[in-house]
Amino acid sequence: MKLASINSGRDGELTLVSRDLKRAFSLPGTLQTALDHWPEVSPKLIALSAALDEDKVPNAFPFDSAQCAAPLPRAYQWADGSAYIAHIALVRQARNAEMPPSLWTDPLIYQGGSANFLGPNEDVPIADESWGIDFEAEIAIITDDVPMGVTAEAARAHIKLVMLANDISLRNLIPTELSKGFGFFQSKAWTSFSPVAVTPDELGEAWNGGSIDLPLVTTLNGTEFGRPNARTGMVFDFPRLIAHAARTRPLGAGTVIGSGTVANDDRSVGSSCIVERRAIEVIDSGAAQTPFLKFGDRVRIEMLDAEGRSIFGAIDQAITAYEPK
Amino acid sequence: MKLASINSGRDGELTLVSRDLKRAFSLPGTLQTALDHWPEVSPKLIALSAALDEDKVPNAFPFDSAQCAAPLPRAYQWADGSAYIAHIALVRQARNAEMPPSLWTDPLIYQGGSANFLGPNEDVPIADESWGIDFEAEIAIITDDVPMGVTAEAARAHIKLVMLANDISLRNLIPTELSKGFGFFQSKAWTSFSPVAVTPDELGEAWNGGSIDLPLVTTLNGTEFGRPNARTGMVFDFPRLIAHAARTRPLGAGTVIGSGTVANDDRSVGSSCIVERRAIEVIDSGAAQTPFLKFGDRVRIEMLDAEGRSIFGAIDQAITAYEPK
Repeated sequence: MKLASINSGRDGELTLVSRDLKRAFSLPGTLQTALDHWPEVSPKLIALSAALDEDKVPNAFPFDSAQCAAPLPRAYQWADGSAYIAHIALVRQARNAEMPPSLWTDPLIYQGGSANFLGPNEDVPIADESWGIDFEAEIAIITDDVPMGVTAEAARAHIKLVMLANDISLRNLIPTELSKGFGFFQSKAWTSFSPVAVTPDELGEAWNGGSIDLPLVTTLNGTEFGRPNARTGMVFDFPRLIAHAARTRPLGAGTVIGSGTVANDDRSVGSSCIVERRAIEVIDSGAAQTPFLKFGDRVRIEMLDAEGRSIFGAIDQAITAYEPK
Repeated sequence: MKLASINSGRDGELTLVSRDLKRAFSLPGTLQTALDHWPEVSPKLIALSAALDEDKVPNAFPFDSAQCAAPLPRAYQWADGSAYIAHIALVRQARNAEMPPSLWTDPLIYQGGSANFLGPNEDVPIADESWGIDFEAEIAIITDDVPMGVTAEAARAHIKLVMLANDISLRNLIPTELSKGFGFFQSKAWTSFSPVAVTPDELGEAWNGGSIDLPLVTTLNGTEFGRPNARTGMVFDFPRLIAHAARTRPLGAGTVIGSGTVANDDRSVGSSCIVERRAIEVIDSGAAQTPFLKFGDRVRIEMLDAEGRSIFGAIDQAITAYEPK
């Protein structure tokens, strides 16, 4: 089953999307409301979804990702991990920060802003190009209600939907902000999500209950930037990230958890953010050459299945200059 | 006008409460929905509130804070500042952390979890007493939609409601967590709020558009723990905190912003959290004597107006042992 939120009000209109991303069918209510009542609602959605895939829903309309908000246009929680060791190593090296000693045993997760998620084709408005605008291509999952103290094993059943994310980061604001000790705030301005969120069964054999064995493809202005595999080098899979996030409190239905920037040790696959490439340039040649994003730059993030079909649709969006009204 | 959310489902039932906290009247919908449509909804609420204060609402019922969820039982954003320099100095001293050099010019704010706020009389379930359980008595405000890049001056008009908060902190988890560089997550387990949130006019002359010139009174197991004035020593008032939070992104309606632990330089007024008293004990006598909270301990946080009347009702709650089901 694939679900989207067509732009409408603050929370969008819950929309079923066919497996081939061609047809759609809107329903009363929102995705958050569906997640709030998932045990009762999801069987009905699954039945309708099967009918939509067989083209047996008369009022279906052509699906257009440009009409999409994020699957959850606003959420009660966005907890973003940093589960790929290759990313952690390069980014910390780039800003002369130490590697956390607990790296292999204790997940890194930050509490992100979740009040204004961007849709897959929405512009990313930024006030100042000099802030070091960067993309971060990630996998994200949505949970139902997760009890406090859940084990990683029990957490697997709480992964209800999977999607892609672009976590926009303002690299030049990060060092000052982190030096204050309270984590990211201004430096994590926006997060965008793929047109659809899918139930894990849509991933077939690429899903093992915790991560996706497929490349995540990022292009910048039409040129491929990276295609790392989303399972390789993921130190903590989603159940581990959920268990970490739920150690001292429950997670409410509709909690969104991110993987962090997908990265592999194999440099030939490229990167899912600019700062990694810049770090490699510094290591290789002493100086970063790839600039951060400029107004007008366009980032595309997509994941294809083994047969080359888009699973989530594409995040495809431009950075724009924000002008206060 | 005073607003509460009576326990009902995930988001409570929007409830008007009389100025004297004696009578209440429930309305269709939730506080979040009201905030989403504040310009249209608030005039009607204000008219009804005036009728309730004059005891002219026939279906009014006796107000009971034990039936209250947090005014927003879950929110899309909880951004908690640390605006009182006396608190910052003592807490950092207690954990041997440096004072941020930008302390006087750049607000400290962390992104908090907002998916499961506690009501004023709800138990605070914690799995492990050894985590160093502490309260933090704070002021919090709720905004409407705040545009990105708002100035502090313009931010004043976006403060729609004011309430009290108890930001439960797990002190023994903080050093390890902050050393990882990503800010608080597990160490900020729960936040509770006062029975009612009030429009700023309810604060009368104690409100200057940015802070409250009244003591915030905390008692622990019936003994007064602190009564610092909530304006004294607030380095950044709420408009400054809003402007900081909105520098790189807009804030959605229903954003909750906290002041951080209210603290004064004058030690005779006591403290709004245990870790401050422990820090003072270390400074004075070389060793902390006051223990962190134990299961069964009860914290009460309240603010009285100049005539001794409770403005927000009281947060009054016990710490309890969490047993997984």
